[in-house]
Amino acid sequence: MRGVLAAVLTPMNADLSVNREAFAAHCRRLLDAGAHGLGIFGTTGEANSLSIAERVDAWGALVEDGIPPEVLLPGTGACALPDAVTLSREALALGASGVLALPPFYYKGVSDDGLFRYFAELIERVGDDRLRLFLYHIPPQTVIGFSVELIGRLLDAFPGVVVGTKDSAGDAARIEALCKTYPSLTVFAGSERFLLDTLRWGGDGCISATCNVTAKQSRRVYDLWEAGSAEADSEQAALTEARKFLDGYPLIPALKAVMRHTTGDELWRNLRPPLDVLDDDAARAIVARL
Amino acid sequence: MRGVLAAVLTPMNADLSVNREAFAAHCRRLLDAGAHGLGIFGTTGEANSLSIAERVDAWGALVEDGIPPEVLLPGTGACALPDAVTLSREALALGASGVLALPPFYYKGVSDDGLFRYFAELIERVGDDRLRLFLYHIPPQTVIGFSVELIGRLLDAFPGVVVGTKDSAGDAARIEALCKTYPSLTVFAGSERFLLDTLRWGGDGCISATCNVTAKQSRRVYDLWEAGSAEADSEQAALTEARKFLDGYPLIPALKAVMRHTTGDELWRNLRPPLDVLDDDAARAIVARL
Repeated sequence: MRGVLAAVLTPMNADLSVNREAFAAHCRRLLDAGAHGLGIFGTTGEANSLSIAERVDAWGALVEDGIPPEVLLPGTGACALPDAVTLSREALALGASGVLALPPFYYKGVSDDGLFRYFAELIERVGDDRLRLFLYHIPPQTVIGFSVELIGRLLDAFPGVVVGTKDSAGDAARIEALCKTYPSLTVFAGSERFLLDTLRWGGDGCISATCNVTAKQSRRVYDLWEAGSAEADSEQAALTEARKFLDGYPLIPALKAVMRHTTGDELWRNLRPPLDVLDDDAARAIVARL
Repeated sequence: MRGVLAAVLTPMNADLSVNREAFAAHCRRLLDAGAHGLGIFGTTGEANSLSIAERVDAWGALVEDGIPPEVLLPGTGACALPDAVTLSREALALGASGVLALPPFYYKGVSDDGLFRYFAELIERVGDDRLRLFLYHIPPQTVIGFSVELIGRLLDAFPGVVVGTKDSAGDAARIEALCKTYPSLTVFAGSERFLLDTLRWGGDGCISATCNVTAKQSRRVYDLWEAGSAEADSEQAALTEARKFLDGYPLIPALKAVMRHTTGDELWRNLRPPLDVLDDDAARAIVARL
């Protein structure tokens, strides 16, 4: 797993169930636009607002509908160990290349030892050598997170199983430190604004919500970097500027508003509470900026 | 539901499954000590570290083992609406008098409108007139919470269904405001240190973790207050002092250490990660203070 991954939005019906056809169509569109992979059922995909059965059914349907399982990086985050075990096993059965694992996020102020024990138990209970864990660091939602030291402990203890991280702390210095401290760790920035820097620091790419809209342009940055082209910098600058269309708006509702505009499909208005639908004026303002 | 409720600890086996016998025995001990009710599977009960099936199986076993369902206030908090619906329906099927409902706690910075919509959907989907919702406000863990205004909106929109709150913000002024702003709301303080004040403000009691240890003494404060006795104040002062034995230690591990000491049963050492077992020195220090 490396390159540009979209943190995929989950299209929903008016009754808040996942719309299977729109989900597969959106994933296909993102791959066609150049995404190397698809981070499904993460924060952007409203994963924690769906039950385990809903997530497993929906990712199974995606593969049935022709999305190759090896491009998928499903979110398997849960507060409860048995839930994380179930989701991880199901992701392996699906044929996904890895799983994106949140820390158990209910309790705050927990220790690195407690988090280490959670992942040790998870790995033992999943009991499958094919497991590839990407540690999902997103303190804006979980408050607690993975210290750089804890990532090192997990890498040492579970080589070949703990393989990567997605870093959504929004802190370039931390991403650089991870790339340089742990050369074997696959490092994805949580935003494509850090894409070129991450690649240059020895990291592997990005997994980003805004890639639902910017997949093509993000891929161009990746390809220019890979080709050693001097144009990579200006393309990254243009990408960083382009993704500002959402600034000041709530991320997931705003991205769904853009999808509604792009596809003309009203189902993109639907979000699970506690997330709110964006009002029409805000949606129009975002589309105008875009 | 009113009076002294213990936020019940969940005893676990070495493999981290719930120990049925110890759970029923502990609940019986708390009722014998004078607890009016039992808040099972809240924060103290490590509810969010257990799967839905584990919670439902364990509370079913409690009732089979002789704990009267009407004294139970099960936690039904979940990030995902369908999970909260399942837990609420199961609690009703059990015969519980009410349910303690967390706000969906993954996303931060959500609006009152989004939270209102979550509870409106929950109530509609449960679709049962017997539902009695107690809103569980615990910002130290969930970060987001129920504004005083939101509680008023929910009371107005769902009279007889939204009936109460447990307030674990640790803020006496907020508890007083809730008691006085909404006289029809059942208000439980999240700590027995506010018990007498809450009763005097027109509230209803407390639901507290430390009542796993102080149930008897807390009940005495309640009874003295009910009898109009002048001794209520000195008894509350003694209770407030007594519950300081845990100060400076992590709450749930420390309470389990006390239970281990009291019962002599080693299973009280077991906690689900990310919570940590207390080391023996700390456990001894707490027991000495007690």
